[in-house]
Amino acid sequence: MARVVVDVMPKPEILDPQGKAVLGALPRLGFSGVTDVRQGKRFELEIAGEVTAEVLAEVEKMAETLLSNPVIENFAVHVEDDVTPAAGSPA
Amino acid sequence: MARVVVDVMPKPEILDPQGKAVLGALPRLGFSGVTDVRQGKRFELEIAGEVTAEVLAEVEKMAETLLSNPVIENFAVHVEDDVTPAAGSPA
Repeated sequence: MARVVVDVMPKPEILDPQGKAVLGALPRLGFSGVTDVRQGKRFELEIAGEVTAEVLAEVEKMAETLLSNPVIENFAVHVEDDVTPAAGSPA
Repeated sequence: MARVVVDVMPKPEILDPQGKAVLGALPRLGFSGVTDVRQGKRFELEIAGEVTAEVLAEVEKMAETLLSNPVIENFAVHVEDDVTPAAGSPA
């Protein structure tokens, strides 16, 4: 079992109201030093069997047709060791 | 300028309807081999200056108090080289 991650982010030129909302809230909560925040989506796909070049190509097609809107979003695909992000630990 | 990424995912025991919807759509689009899909959020924080241990600790606090709901979500924090995910390229 392998895990392939698809990260989908708004294109840089696209306004990101959610990111701006987070950016605006940080100083009110006493946080400083953050100059910009962008918010996107993260998909974790569990793949049966090995992740071959064909499987990666198929995931790219899924990302392009189903998981992202290529007009306003960029996506990046990478294979991840089967590690579940434990609560509060830097990965 | 450095970029710190916060990945927020639903805890494994929490039902993820969005992930299930994507999983259900894949066969209809002709994709196979994916056994599970989880959908979460990805935050990219641009940090002024260097990412020290103190800065990382502060981002962890932001993740815990603002970016995630610790009751139903796990988060993972990692520093990323300043690389914007180009459209369609495996990262």
